[in-house]
Amino acid sequence: MASRKTAKKKAQAKKTPKKTARKKAPARASEAKAASLARDLKKRAEKMDGVTIDLICDTANDVHKDIRKRAKPDLAFPVRSLKNVSYSQRKGYFEIGRQKKVRTLTVNTVKSFAQTLRMMGLSKELVESNDFATKRDAYYQSKNWEEARFDEQTESDAVMDDIEALFSLRGLSREQLRFVPDEHGGAVAGQLVVLDPDRETGEVERIDCTRFGSGAYSIPSSVEQLSFETDARFILAIETGGIFQRLQSHKYWQTANCILVSMAGVPTRATRRFIRKLSDECRIPVYAFVDCDPYGISNIYRTLKVGSGNAAHLSQFFCVPQATYLGVTPQDIVDYQLPTHPLQDVDVKRAKDALKNDPFFKTHKPWQKAIEQMLKMGVRAEQQALAKWGLNYVIEEYLPRKLEQTRSFLP
Amino acid sequence: MASRKTAKKKAQAKKTPKKTARKKAPARASEAKAASLARDLKKRAEKMDGVTIDLICDTANDVHKDIRKRAKPDLAFPVRSLKNVSYSQRKGYFEIGRQKKVRTLTVNTVKSFAQTLRMMGLSKELVESNDFATKRDAYYQSKNWEEARFDEQTESDAVMDDIEALFSLRGLSREQLRFVPDEHGGAVAGQLVVLDPDRETGEVERIDCTRFGSGAYSIPSSVEQLSFETDARFILAIETGGIFQRLQSHKYWQTANCILVSMAGVPTRATRRFIRKLSDECRIPVYAFVDCDPYGISNIYRTLKVGSGNAAHLSQFFCVPQATYLGVTPQDIVDYQLPTHPLQDVDVKRAKDALKNDPFFKTHKPWQKAIEQMLKMGVRAEQQALAKWGLNYVIEEYLPRKLEQTRSFLP
Repeated sequence: MASRKTAKKKAQAKKTPKKTARKKAPARASEAKAASLARDLKKRAEKMDGVTIDLICDTANDVHKDIRKRAKPDLAFPVRSLKNVSYSQRKGYFEIGRQKKVRTLTVNTVKSFAQTLRMMGLSKELVESNDFATKRDAYYQSKNWEEARFDEQTESDAVMDDIEALFSLRGLSREQLRFVPDEHGGAVAGQLVVLDPDRETGEVERIDCTRFGSGAYSIPSSVEQLSFETDARFILAIETGGIFQRLQSHKYWQTANCILVSMAGVPTRATRRFIRKLSDECRIPVYAFVDCDPYGISNIYRTLKVGSGNAAHLSQFFCVPQATYLGVTPQDIVDYQLPTHPLQDVDVKRAKDALKNDPFFKTHKPWQKAIEQMLKMGVRAEQQALAKWGLNYVIEEYLPRKLEQTRSFLP
Repeated sequence: MASRKTAKKKAQAKKTPKKTARKKAPARASEAKAASLARDLKKRAEKMDGVTIDLICDTANDVHKDIRKRAKPDLAFPVRSLKNVSYSQRKGYFEIGRQKKVRTLTVNTVKSFAQTLRMMGLSKELVESNDFATKRDAYYQSKNWEEARFDEQTESDAVMDDIEALFSLRGLSREQLRFVPDEHGGAVAGQLVVLDPDRETGEVERIDCTRFGSGAYSIPSSVEQLSFETDARFILAIETGGIFQRLQSHKYWQTANCILVSMAGVPTRATRRFIRKLSDECRIPVYAFVDCDPYGISNIYRTLKVGSGNAAHLSQFFCVPQATYLGVTPQDIVDYQLPTHPLQDVDVKRAKDALKNDPFFKTHKPWQKAIEQMLKMGVRAEQQALAKWGLNYVIEEYLPRKLEQTRSFLP
């Protein structure tokens, strides 16, 4: 769907907008193209929805068959825990293992069994009515399910997580089940056109992320329906709003021909999925630019790249295995003589945990060295520490120097 | 600058874009208009910058004069505390009082005195180079100030807060001093065109907030340079991302002719300033739509409307005195039979505090009644609780009914 070539043509076309805008033929051609794009996107969405509905119906039919045979129906969910997780460098993300927990319909489980089926039913309704619900919406919806209503949101969240894990085995994400996160995504600016088909008419909105002034594009809760046009060289995933605003206001994306994404700490589901989809569909590398501390490295970067332990069933959709680590590295602290803070106990604990227990860091030697270097120096540095050398040092010196050696980025 | 009439004309013009786009004359006319707008905005920005530089120079000159006279120079900052705050219903926001703390240059204060002056110097440089810095940037910049460098960011933050309070007495906000917040603003969608002049060229970007598909416009850290075109009837300031996404995806802004702003909890400085500026310049009422609990009422809504106690020097720029409270009200819990949660101890404490100590709630009888009703019922309700009656009940029933009686909104 997304194509870097089309994007390049568009970029060339953009240079002479006034001439072409007044000619009839190109206008019609571009209308025809837009209509064809809208059709393509609609077809893709309908196909995805078809798969979702089929899977829900198959699951329900199996239960129904068992009941007709007067057998006890059951549902088998993958076990969601660190112990049921594997990491292979080839796949590039934490993967959920084969352990299952089976929920059989008995007198004791009848309520949660019914709730699980009703929750799947809600998902089916949402797909059919082309709508969506947050976890909280789903909880409140259940208040009308009489005996099957949930008393606490934690209960409905757990049922939703089980359903999500179950369907993830068949390649479906929670967003495809139309359960969307409550939190918004991050902010985006740069060389990117986002194509977003209207929920009702299917008409495609073209959102040009170079045209937000000092503001930015805010990623929606669900990004499954989006596609992209870009000829950007890379995606820069940035930890802090401060650095994002600096790069955005100085149009760094123009200088470097890139796309800026503000993660604002640990990236939300929508932000991770957005980066992953964009990187996959347009084949653009992702560089992470975060604070040099155990939190930036093992929470923000590791979660972005391979996912997190207790939600490994999400990794296939949400992690960005193609991401590499631009900085700030422990070696940068030395090379750029950055102002530092001493590592706190919690930092040291987190770093040692990563070295000892985290399958990702255990697989990658360069990371072990980097973390050991940080522990030895006993300090951490924030990305904004580069401001010591001038507010725009990050734009004029640091990033250009770093980008000359992308192959030596930490994995 | 912003005009609802121009906006109406634009909206009419938009209905026939293909016809006009091919005519030369209107194209030229609109180019001329854009150029004139760019000039206006530039003039306004230069004027504001001139005032800022003058005030910084005046302050520095006073110090310089004292030194030449061999007198001890001093700087007087307003005291920033709840005890130095007043609330008048007419002005509509918490106002800082007349108490001052005087910092005289002595052997003991020489470092912080020097730091204060250097920080003002940094602000002057930022205005002159048309750049900006976050609090953290400023801290790291100081690492090159030799003996005047800050050892901890808390120190530089305190100095910046003092400078901000000092200049607020002369009508200048921290953003005008070019110190911008680290956090981003909220998300915006709806009947609004944001005009944002380019930092370097002055060319004005027109950002049409109806054209973001399921995404949204992310408010920049500083909004001083923005102006607006709109004919929206009201601004709806929404607590949760979930409700914002629902209203945005269903294009509620089109049905209701309004502007949606997602606050995502207690609104950031940039979000509050954006709402205030938009409401002031375009004379549109602001309706708050938050959870019915002491946090939603006394933290989110109260902060939005009148500011907060310990940052009263900001209120004149950041609060939105024209805001009123659409819901969810304690009476809504009864009227709409909403699912509730029991009030926790912390909720009860917060509510009682508001009644006893908060000048805002003490001024407004209807609020006292509402909070007492909530305490009596002993329950709270989330805005998403409306989903009990259907996911889109909020769009189809709740909001339309409420908007028929805007005069009875809580103050």
